[in-house]
Amino acid sequence: MSEQRIDNRLWSAKARNLSPYVPGEQPQHDNLCKLNTNENPFPPSPKVGEAITHMLAQQADNLRLYPDPESDELRTALAEYYDLERDQVFVGNGSDEVLALVFASFFMKERPVLAPDISYSFYPVYAQTFGVELVQIALESDFSIDPDAYRQPCSGIIIANPNAPTGLLLSLADISKLASEHTNAVIVIDEAYIDFAEDEDVSAISLINEFDNLLVTQTFSKSRSLAGLRVGMAFGNLSLIEALTRMKNSFNSYPLDKLAQAGAKASVLDSDYFKQTCQRVIGLRQSLTASLSVLGYEVLPSHANFVFARPPLGNAQEIASQLREQGIIVRHFDKARINEYVRITVGTPDQHKRLIDALTVLHDKIDQNQDALSS
Amino acid sequence: MSEQRIDNRLWSAKARNLSPYVPGEQPQHDNLCKLNTNENPFPPSPKVGEAITHMLAQQADNLRLYPDPESDELRTALAEYYDLERDQVFVGNGSDEVLALVFASFFMKERPVLAPDISYSFYPVYAQTFGVELVQIALESDFSIDPDAYRQPCSGIIIANPNAPTGLLLSLADISKLASEHTNAVIVIDEAYIDFAEDEDVSAISLINEFDNLLVTQTFSKSRSLAGLRVGMAFGNLSLIEALTRMKNSFNSYPLDKLAQAGAKASVLDSDYFKQTCQRVIGLRQSLTASLSVLGYEVLPSHANFVFARPPLGNAQEIASQLREQGIIVRHFDKARINEYVRITVGTPDQHKRLIDALTVLHDKIDQNQDALSS
Repeated sequence: MSEQRIDNRLWSAKARNLSPYVPGEQPQHDNLCKLNTNENPFPPSPKVGEAITHMLAQQADNLRLYPDPESDELRTALAEYYDLERDQVFVGNGSDEVLALVFASFFMKERPVLAPDISYSFYPVYAQTFGVELVQIALESDFSIDPDAYRQPCSGIIIANPNAPTGLLLSLADISKLASEHTNAVIVIDEAYIDFAEDEDVSAISLINEFDNLLVTQTFSKSRSLAGLRVGMAFGNLSLIEALTRMKNSFNSYPLDKLAQAGAKASVLDSDYFKQTCQRVIGLRQSLTASLSVLGYEVLPSHANFVFARPPLGNAQEIASQLREQGIIVRHFDKARINEYVRITVGTPDQHKRLIDALTVLHDKIDQNQDALSS
Repeated sequence: MSEQRIDNRLWSAKARNLSPYVPGEQPQHDNLCKLNTNENPFPPSPKVGEAITHMLAQQADNLRLYPDPESDELRTALAEYYDLERDQVFVGNGSDEVLALVFASFFMKERPVLAPDISYSFYPVYAQTFGVELVQIALESDFSIDPDAYRQPCSGIIIANPNAPTGLLLSLADISKLASEHTNAVIVIDEAYIDFAEDEDVSAISLINEFDNLLVTQTFSKSRSLAGLRVGMAFGNLSLIEALTRMKNSFNSYPLDKLAQAGAKASVLDSDYFKQTCQRVIGLRQSLTASLSVLGYEVLPSHANFVFARPPLGNAQEIASQLREQGIIVRHFDKARINEYVRITVGTPDQHKRLIDALTVLHDKIDQNQDALSS
């Protein structure tokens, strides 16, 4: 669309001033090695497709009726899986919608919200959308998060854990510290990637009965291989969940369609498949990390389904661009402090082989050029 | 959930002050005659289920990937059906989400938005959610809308056409008048029920190339029998569509899941089924209107898939409550001017028989009581 043809005369000031989020590209070419948007390399549980197909086959006219606006069956399944009450669980149209409702419900206040300077790039967009001041707290030099750096008045703190694009994990002790030091702020831990952590029992869901100001968000898009179904969730004290529910019912009462509710519920019930898939991704991350290390890459210790890696010469943009010419898409962020890194989604063994083969040839060529220049 | 347990200490002022929309109830009992939420009595096109099942069967891992954030294929199908350009079409997670984005994109201004005093009850909720002043313009005594009553400064006008719960239709001439008299306001015509109008060619979509300030919203939930799939759309000048797209990408980039996109597209392509279903509903509305008239009901001339009818004694609340005891659910609004009416969704012939049989017995009993009292 030509920007010249756009006339913003009738737009609200808010519409004029937005800088919308730009999702990672979704090119539709064949034979692409797509390692740029952190999708799961494995399909969802077969039970998901079965549940949806069954719903369509058994009740052909089911779709003519409105879905349950509160997604009670799905929330019950999640509550049972995580050993919570159903009114401690909220679900939405992807965790992006859940996070938008979080900003409106808890952060629209005089005090700012705090977030790491390097993190999910939708956070500053939400802040702008909801007129919230976002104060970015610098990561430490090793990209870790220091809870002490967050000691300032705020309406809330939002931290992706593991953080993106670094993949680094904040400990439950540090999260407890944040929650107990900011009792008048809502601490949001965005656990989009938590199921890929090296160790078990690192989710802050275990802390929500202890801290009434702690909200944990998760998504079906990564560890449950359901990015195409758009389901996200939040876990917290029932008063936080009630605020989100009221806000939802003031925006859009029925955010989850019937098929998404049925598919997501089937995914939760198939916990064996879920755990196996997570373990396979963790194993592949370890082998990808090892292969990149052999090529001289500095790889941050990742707890997500991606690795954040610095090529030997720090020429990340060049590497990403050269890979792209061969149909291998990785993500490079043209941003201070992280522009020498590439973020690579954990893929299948075949995709890893293709990537590492391409990088091996690429680095040989770069080394030869370097040698030629210095000789 | 017990309200006593809710602690709103951490909520934003916005969250505290909301009066969320209350959707029509969705009771899950068997043998219910559910005529309260204007769902289509007929199932969606069989092509919808086929398209979704095909997507699941052919590409088992399809759901692991993100959907197209801009729903290009669906928007292309809609553009072709309505003879528009794709960039004149916007789609969202139900028309409720589309309307929320409309309020944020066009109505968040110093000037108020105007709407009929009797209309879709979500409009005042959106106004509150987005901090917009909503001025309600009284319907005429016959429940019609007079465009001259809207002659006052405003940022926009939103009118459901056909209006709900009256079912009355505003003419294209009147809509043109509104659009031409308010060139600095966005005129939103919410056509949730337009496909059930008695005459063809009454949609304001035909006017969007003439008026750059006219936006038309529609939904798949009524005439396309897909309330369970959550798809709504807007048609307008590309500058209006661009504002909605920017706002969407600042809330939630991927509102439509892959299955909803595929199912909705299949529905649009099966235009024969769509037109036949609408004609059947129109025929059933005519027979329901005739049956109610025989019982002495005053029935407004409806262009929607519901009728708004006043029982002979105006005892609408009593009628609704008595029907409910027999498992027949209709909608009564406890609101000035319309509390003597019931809104009855057009159902199947079997549902109509059950309703009319029940009403016949009910009115015989009421007549006998009246006779007994007066004798």
